[in-house]
Amino acid sequence: MTFLRNIWYVACWDHEIAEGALLGRRLLDEAVVLYRDAAGKPVALRDLCPHRLAPLSFGRIVDGSLRCGYHGLGFDAQGQCVHNPFGPPSRTMKVQSYPVVERHSAIWIWMGDAQAADPALIPDFGFNDPDAFFVGKGYIGVKAGYELEIENILDLSHIEFLHPDTLGSDQVSQGEYACQVEGDVVWSNRTVHGEIMNERLSARMGVEPGQPADRWIHVRWTMPANMAIFAGAVPSGRPQKEGRETPTAHLFTPESAGSTHYFYSISFPRAMGDYGAQLAREQVEFLSVPFATEDLPMLQAQQANLGSGGLRDARIGWLPGDAAGARARKILYERIDAERRLASPIEAAAEAPAA
Amino acid sequence: MTFLRNIWYVACWDHEIAEGALLGRRLLDEAVVLYRDAAGKPVALRDLCPHRLAPLSFGRIVDGSLRCGYHGLGFDAQGQCVHNPFGPPSRTMKVQSYPVVERHSAIWIWMGDAQAADPALIPDFGFNDPDAFFVGKGYIGVKAGYELEIENILDLSHIEFLHPDTLGSDQVSQGEYACQVEGDVVWSNRTVHGEIMNERLSARMGVEPGQPADRWIHVRWTMPANMAIFAGAVPSGRPQKEGRETPTAHLFTPESAGSTHYFYSISFPRAMGDYGAQLAREQVEFLSVPFATEDLPMLQAQQANLGSGGLRDARIGWLPGDAAGARARKILYERIDAERRLASPIEAAAEAPAA
Amino acid sequence: MTFLRNIWYVACWDHEIAEGALLGRRLLDEAVVLYRDAAGKPVALRDLCPHRLAPLSFGRIVDGSLRCGYHGLGFDAQGQCVHNPFGPPSRTMKVQSYPVVERHSAIWIWMGDAQAADPALIPDFGFNDPDAFFVGKGYIGVKAGYELEIENILDLSHIEFLHPDTLGSDQVSQGEYACQVEGDVVWSNRTVHGEIMNERLSARMGVEPGQPADRWIHVRWTMPANMAIFAGAVPSGRPQKEGRETPTAHLFTPESAGSTHYFYSISFPRAMGDYGAQLAREQVEFLSVPFATEDLPMLQAQQANLGSGGLRDARIGWLPGDAAGARARKILYERIDAERRLASPIEAAAEAPAA
Repeated sequence: MTFLRNIWYVACWDHEIAEGALLGRRLLDEAVVLYRDAAGKPVALRDLCPHRLAPLSFGRIVDGSLRCGYHGLGFDAQGQCVHNPFGPPSRTMKVQSYPVVERHSAIWIWMGDAQAADPALIPDFGFNDPDAFFVGKGYIGVKAGYELEIENILDLSHIEFLHPDTLGSDQVSQGEYACQVEGDVVWSNRTVHGEIMNERLSARMGVEPGQPADRWIHVRWTMPANMAIFAGAVPSGRPQKEGRETPTAHLFTPESAGSTHYFYSISFPRAMGDYGAQLAREQVEFLSVPFATEDLPMLQAQQANLGSGGLRDARIGWLPGDAAGARARKILYERIDAERRLASPIEAAAEAPAA
Repeated sequence: MTFLRNIWYVACWDHEIAEGALLGRRLLDEAVVLYRDAAGKPVALRDLCPHRLAPLSFGRIVDGSLRCGYHGLGFDAQGQCVHNPFGPPSRTMKVQSYPVVERHSAIWIWMGDAQAADPALIPDFGFNDPDAFFVGKGYIGVKAGYELEIENILDLSHIEFLHPDTLGSDQVSQGEYACQVEGDVVWSNRTVHGEIMNERLSARMGVEPGQPADRWIHVRWTMPANMAIFAGAVPSGRPQKEGRETPTAHLFTPESAGSTHYFYSISFPRAMGDYGAQLAREQVEFLSVPFATEDLPMLQAQQANLGSGGLRDARIGWLPGDAAGARARKILYERIDAERRLASPIEAAAEAPAA
Repeated sequence: MTFLRNIWYVACWDHEIAEGALLGRRLLDEAVVLYRDAAGKPVALRDLCPHRLAPLSFGRIVDGSLRCGYHGLGFDAQGQCVHNPFGPPSRTMKVQSYPVVERHSAIWIWMGDAQAADPALIPDFGFNDPDAFFVGKGYIGVKAGYELEIENILDLSHIEFLHPDTLGSDQVSQGEYACQVEGDVVWSNRTVHGEIMNERLSARMGVEPGQPADRWIHVRWTMPANMAIFAGAVPSGRPQKEGRETPTAHLFTPESAGSTHYFYSISFPRAMGDYGAQLAREQVEFLSVPFATEDLPMLQAQQANLGSGGLRDARIGWLPGDAAGARARKILYERIDAERRLASPIEAAAEAPAA
């Protein structure tokens, strides 16, 4: 599988590399180690000592640089050898380093051409900024490819069938649905009118249980697989601005062709005070149940049925709610193909699937 | 590996698809889902929703038809889409259905040409009919190919060495042995004269412990790997008709090239009343011990030694007791080759092993 | 991967085949069964019955010969069939046998040309002779190739970084290092002057804790991956002969290309009496902690980073301490290539890596 490389991916949540911590994680099928330097700035290096292939994540941080745990070689944030217990630092042993940016409670990594790593290209997840929001954060490792995750989030009609007791109701499929494309951004917007939600969900959405509500669920996709959901509800017939819209983030980074890191979060404004902090804690916990016990087995079973081939080449069916997923994947594949042509024009031409 | 397709296989025991139950099971390396329709009739479909590859066995049964648990599409017993929450039922999304017949306490499936699925071809396991017999039923998933199971059951001389404390004695190998072929049916018949069986076994066979017995063990093989064992004993020198013959079934269905579903049972006539019911329960439990703790590890170790190649091409030795297994596999392979020639004459010719 | 075949490997420790025991173990990617005959002499056969591929290690020993646990065939120490419950012993069913020698508390196996199996070629581990030494013996199964183990033991500078709390100190890397090659034997000798060892280590080495010591650690490599470490210490400035040198053995046998049997031991002279026996027990236990909790995960992570390719073709770096490992592997690879050229001249030429 070819991954898009000149793009920002979430490598980890900010708290996963607390001071002194070393995090080894496979991203785009490469072993990466993440940590913070002496100033607290995040650093990402290939998790592989060039001396004897030891994972650098087994080492330790000394004076803000990374020391291999096998023979003590030290590397700085650029991957340059800066310490050698047996002589002068080696100039030939160098570790690949990756541009990283800390933003929106996450560490974003760029695994393509470092010259092109413009932080302005990081998609806007301002509702995850810890200064302004309480952010409840979760993580699930999924044995399924990231394209299945794109489809899962962009077609939330599935909450009626896969999450009937938590997030869905039996009216979701009857809602209005609209797919909008704005440049490289795809929106999948759904509104359910007069919906009777289950008691707990209704209360969460700020509608008296048992009363019909108008619920909107708007999903924004940005490349490669970073999605924001803006959802809210009002008593049926009232204007949307009277409701509270709660944003959640659903950020997917390929671990390998058939496995994905799923970073999810839910945010409440700091203006809400302690109650907002409590909601962030409680509701990210609440979300983990359908995500881990309903989405996870479904996605992993789809992946097993998909076999070693990718979703791009699979024979699948079509329902109206698939519009957004199809548009998003089309945009993504065009970008992947363009990158491939640049990297290796002849190989790309030979491998291109027939149009 | 090529499986014989135009033949009946056991997909599950009847009780495995109790009302409302959905059973997902891999058969002949295909994912199959089994359930009962509103009238209680068994249904088998490909366990794969054509929309997004979700396993249908993750769904639920509504009004006797199967609803996918991901986006709610419904399919009838023929695999036709009959329900779509988002519009009219799709005519293009169709699921493969398989002929199934409930007989002899089992659900039999035909995974070849549906036109040829004649129920009269199901082999006779009348001693498993629940109207006339109490049937104790067991199941073991085995990580070994079904051909090794054919050999295991057709050469029961192994009970002397592999099951010395339960089913065997040190005289089994000295018994008479005869292999008979009747069309596509192979018999492997063994009689041990003057056998001193262990105390528990002797009592089970109806012979006073410590007394010499004449024990017969007759095995009937039918394609592809369905075997009946008819075994009994009498005090040495008495006529067979004075003994009680107990039939057991040993039904093997490939899960994949290297793994097999093993359905086994033991039957006692309903005429025996409560005692027969008790024996069926007790003795199927008793059999599970040698099957799971002695046969299972042996077969799995043989498979590991066999590696990725099949038994058909393996270099193996010869003992007199191998006659029945060899005949059975010859009949089976000829049928597989004939089916292959019909399906793809050129490919079959190219792949055929040298005679 | 091509293993050197005309060489002695350790198959097991002597106590692993206590009387009546059958040990099945994969060596050089072949299934081998080991046991002792009626006279207590070790025997090694292919762990595969030629009749139906059953592992012979599932069988039992009767009158010093090995009986298959499936259909009772018996084989002698040469692998000849000597017992058949169903007739005369088969002359065609033969099991491969391997030369074995019991020496230095271990059973050594020769998996090449049996004619060439000269016991004089077994390397000298006289300090493991149970007549003269108390030998504490341990075993770890490692999911890493044996070449990584050669490098690990031949460059013990790693004890400073990987074993800082047990075997190392922060002065090891500053010690003197010398690599010596004597024919096919490679020495990696390290001496640390004025070393302050941790309290427990210092006591073990016979130096008063807190006092500077001169510690020597000499490693001897013999093909393919059998190493002896001779280590001792004296109060700084005193002559070596005043210290107690303790030998340990580190014997590696490939299980497969990516996994290795690690046999390790530590020896104390019988002349020490009960205290020597106690030390052997205690110190082999002590060693198991860094070996299993520090070396093992490191080596397995290196192997994972190495992927399916071997260390021979990997791009790795160079530090002065790598001299011995490089020399040892060069000698080993030359011998492997020579053996390959003899076995299959044309294939070897085609596969040879570019020089």
